[in-house]
Amino acid sequence: MDPLERLIAIEDIKQLKARYFRAVDTKDAALLRSVFTADATADYRGAATDPRSGVNAIPGNTEAVVIGAEAIVAGVMTSVASLTTVHHGHIPEITVVSDSEANGIIPMVDRLTMPADSPIAALDGWGHYHETYRKEGDGWKIARLRLSRLRVDVTMAD
Amino acid sequence: MDPLERLIAIEDIKQLKARYFRAVDTKDAALLRSVFTADATADYRGAATDPRSGVNAIPGNTEAVVIGAEAIVAGVMTSVASLTTVHHGHIPEITVVSDSEANGIIPMVDRLTMPADSPIAALDGWGHYHETYRKEGDGWKIARLRLSRLRVDVTMAD
Amino acid sequence: MDPLERLIAIEDIKQLKARYFRAVDTKDAALLRSVFTADATADYRGAATDPRSGVNAIPGNTEAVVIGAEAIVAGVMTSVASLTTVHHGHIPEITVVSDSEANGIIPMVDRLTMPADSPIAALDGWGHYHETYRKEGDGWKIARLRLSRLRVDVTMAD
Repeated sequence: MDPLERLIAIEDIKQLKARYFRAVDTKDAALLRSVFTADATADYRGAATDPRSGVNAIPGNTEAVVIGAEAIVAGVMTSVASLTTVHHGHIPEITVVSDSEANGIIPMVDRLTMPADSPIAALDGWGHYHETYRKEGDGWKIARLRLSRLRVDVTMAD
Repeated sequence: MDPLERLIAIEDIKQLKARYFRAVDTKDAALLRSVFTADATADYRGAATDPRSGVNAIPGNTEAVVIGAEAIVAGVMTSVASLTTVHHGHIPEITVVSDSEANGIIPMVDRLTMPADSPIAALDGWGHYHETYRKEGDGWKIARLRLSRLRVDVTMAD
Repeated sequence: MDPLERLIAIEDIKQLKARYFRAVDTKDAALLRSVFTADATADYRGAATDPRSGVNAIPGNTEAVVIGAEAIVAGVMTSVASLTTVHHGHIPEITVVSDSEANGIIPMVDRLTMPADSPIAALDGWGHYHETYRKEGDGWKIARLRLSRLRVDVTMAD
């Protein structure tokens, strides 16, 4: 692949992922929709499970792979509606496979504060997004997203 | 705009912002001065206000837009003089408008520890810098900076 | 230096550092070995010392410069074996000196949870990696690594 084209793709994918984070944290459904391919899949299984204990702190949530951008956006927006969230991405590893395909590993931290009536007060998590990207007519999109966890700290409500 | 020139501008602006963070946290006034245009404006209003409560944890501080690089540097240096601070930037969205103009959104976290005699022990904040950049003879500079907050956690002194 | 070559080097060094972080946190010795030159040096002195107090929270550890990739990998793997660790890098300053030499300053945060029998429960640190890189036949490698600290927070076990 042309070296300049590769760098352009990497920068555009970084900004794509930055828009994903900003869309989730500012609860911007239209912006979030714009970062996914229509047929995208999102695998947030384990997002609320500390890999050290294996305990899922938020049963019922994030237990299945979500298929399709519309379903992903609806699911994320429902999840974050009553929360204050921060999601940040760190120095990523993005590999461009072809003019229209790329893979990425994105280190991440998130910090969720739950609503007052929740048994859980807060969830602080660290891990990596493992993603594939596809270039469409209007730019790079996330085609597949999977979140793996290094640790999840749960703070119970008093 | 030439694609290579765009990528060079984006990388140079990222490094500009990295110098901003390092200058604040290492309290390096000369380095901090070097990242701003002479006529820069900095809008830190709300930096100490949790958007959920609307309460400004540090009244009297960060209540006005600061105009001019000299005033910005003096204000930041006064603010951080007695504090231990960490400011970090995450995957940014930088848009190059022309050969000499660009915009950016920089996700951020900061962690401030207050002096022993302060009623506040610590402030942990998350948000985004919204910035404009201008290219001058010696490179890209921050021309306008505004900080918006996702959350601000204040820990009171015992 | 050719501007495109410079950008390629910077992106490749960012991904090198991302692999370093991922190797440490996923405890992948082979991946960690791959990021260093054979003659690399690692200076983690002060990594467990809060610069405000000067107290080394983990005496006996990180007290000497480690020489050679094999020794660095062995030392890191021993250090993290019983810990849960997260290390993240933020917007870096990378300066390409020549086709085969570069320098970098990488802002960082780490979060270590100690084993149950340790007097220390957790260590949260912030600082900068100061690094030099060398390009070898199979790409850029870390030739020298030094960690400076802005702050280190130690949580004692109950």
